[in-house]
Amino acid sequence: MARSARPTLAVVGATGAVGTVMLGILSQHADIWGEIRLVASPRSAGRKLTVRGEEVEVSALTEDVFDGVDVAMFDVPDEVAAAWAPVAVARGAVVVDNSGAFRMDPDVPLVVPEVNAHAARRRPRGIVATPNCTTLSMIVALGALHAEFGLRELVVSSYQAVSGAGRAGVDALRRQLSLVAGTDLGTRPGDVRRAVGDDTGPFPEPVALNVVPWAGSLREDGWSSEEMKVRDESRKILGLPKLPVAVTCVRVPVLTTHSLTVHARFEDEVTVDRAREILATAPGVVLFDDPAAGEFPTPADVVGTDPTWVGRVRRALDDPTALELFVCGDNLRKGSALNTTQIAESVAAETR
Amino acid sequence: MARSARPTLAVVGATGAVGTVMLGILSQHADIWGEIRLVASPRSAGRKLTVRGEEVEVSALTEDVFDGVDVAMFDVPDEVAAAWAPVAVARGAVVVDNSGAFRMDPDVPLVVPEVNAHAARRRPRGIVATPNCTTLSMIVALGALHAEFGLRELVVSSYQAVSGAGRAGVDALRRQLSLVAGTDLGTRPGDVRRAVGDDTGPFPEPVALNVVPWAGSLREDGWSSEEMKVRDESRKILGLPKLPVAVTCVRVPVLTTHSLTVHARFEDEVTVDRAREILATAPGVVLFDDPAAGEFPTPADVVGTDPTWVGRVRRALDDPTALELFVCGDNLRKGSALNTTQIAESVAAETR
Repeated sequence: MARSARPTLAVVGATGAVGTVMLGILSQHADIWGEIRLVASPRSAGRKLTVRGEEVEVSALTEDVFDGVDVAMFDVPDEVAAAWAPVAVARGAVVVDNSGAFRMDPDVPLVVPEVNAHAARRRPRGIVATPNCTTLSMIVALGALHAEFGLRELVVSSYQAVSGAGRAGVDALRRQLSLVAGTDLGTRPGDVRRAVGDDTGPFPEPVALNVVPWAGSLREDGWSSEEMKVRDESRKILGLPKLPVAVTCVRVPVLTTHSLTVHARFEDEVTVDRAREILATAPGVVLFDDPAAGEFPTPADVVGTDPTWVGRVRRALDDPTALELFVCGDNLRKGSALNTTQIAESVAAETR
Repeated sequence: MARSARPTLAVVGATGAVGTVMLGILSQHADIWGEIRLVASPRSAGRKLTVRGEEVEVSALTEDVFDGVDVAMFDVPDEVAAAWAPVAVARGAVVVDNSGAFRMDPDVPLVVPEVNAHAARRRPRGIVATPNCTTLSMIVALGALHAEFGLRELVVSSYQAVSGAGRAGVDALRRQLSLVAGTDLGTRPGDVRRAVGDDTGPFPEPVALNVVPWAGSLREDGWSSEEMKVRDESRKILGLPKLPVAVTCVRVPVLTTHSLTVHARFEDEVTVDRAREILATAPGVVLFDDPAAGEFPTPADVVGTDPTWVGRVRRALDDPTALELFVCGDNLRKGSALNTTQIAESVAAETR
């Protein structure tokens, strides 16, 4: 098939941290797209980026840029997505959106292909949403366990990488590490904060030699927006609107790859052996779990890979219906760019 | 009272990371001790350390070193404590032991003065144990909440500092940070591991730009010794031998101060307002919880302080009997040296 007969893709937000990973994934995946149009804010227009080995000039975000586009992948701030996704739809594109603007809209499916691929086909607004990176870092593994055991409750704690806050988060950690490495900072109250100064980047506190129990903005009763997303999105993806989900989100000094501890309670008694069988064969999941051999996932080993890695699989000692897990997923790949690309590719496949 | 009329203290393990903090605390606290004898392994004998502004020569660990000692604080490996604590007791000392050797012995009380001070007086073996630093980083706050609400279940995830593994842990992180700061490492699979090499110090994986879901040694069914300690010790301290406790312990690139997320379920419905009142007035606890003002504890601010800091107090959205907390405690101070010193001081007070 000639490229001209293939669908046209627009990548909106092509110059960001996630956009960069999207271009890399598009270059590695089977060549299902005809034209790939790169779109960004006007200040990035005219820049040239490489995708599929070819230089492509970045276009400014305008209504006309969507003419002839079949599928548009959006990775832009919520308010930009809210304004521009309907414009792209009006010009005939299906939008796959990685912002928080549409995720909880009942007329927008929230899709993780390994868990609820079917949901992407009912999209009355022409928009399919992809979940927050923290939800995505665990939900493929939990979907597989839920299909067998029936999930009843989740208690989740996150160890979130700084690239979840984009390039600014990466720059902030690198700058802070340069200030503290080779010093004796980190053992007296506030000395890291004094060394780092007021410029803590997108985070409320220094993140080098620290962990920061905050991500997102303040919601009611002390919950953060990130914590609410994990709860609300997990419920929607799994089709369990009443699932009890308790979450605490914490930023850690890791560049990329989110980790989570998960306490998952199921309908009936579970066994570790069966849980391991499920995880070892689930699409998109790697079981890496042999502590005696030093095998458990860590972000430094998982970064740059596609699957959800699961280790430390244990049955709760005091509850035969509960499992403990440690899960790692690259927040820029499956957590953002890869899931978005997978959905876009499945939409493209519908029309063939 | 002249120093000679006051009790004699021995500090066994005076040269270690915890021992160093013990000497600092002894120098700051009211001067209740007569002689303070510093004891360590033979290879450290003859070194001079400063306590209460005076230089004291370190003695080698021998039977005779305990002659005339009223209270001996031990911070040494389990096997050294197991062998030598009974020797010190036989020579007339009360031992306050910070190792894991005696904590679960039914004839050895496991004491956190703010929670179960009374337990220290029944010590048929002449030994009082102080808990693991991870348990101690949360238990003062949980003890206060339990006294009011009645604890029914705990789900805990840790963010543990490297100094929990002693000086070797601190040295390992500092060395690794020097290798990765100012580089572009941390974004490709295994690049941190290759840069750090095989010398990961006391940890199974590099801890710079990483989190490592392992602490301690392997126990049955995939649990780590550190996780079992948190469960078993919490039960013993709180006097709740059947309390369901699920724990995942994770090492993070922080030098000192352990953090934990806690999902605590109680007998009846709880309110955040009452929980905050309890935490705000509990001895040894600081409530630091105003996310709108950017207030929540982080290890970089808590390090070097004595209390247990609690923030992010929320009621579970889907369970009116459960609270979510984020807790920080300096693992070398309240987590080790301070709790040991508090117990030793209370033993000394008995005999006056």
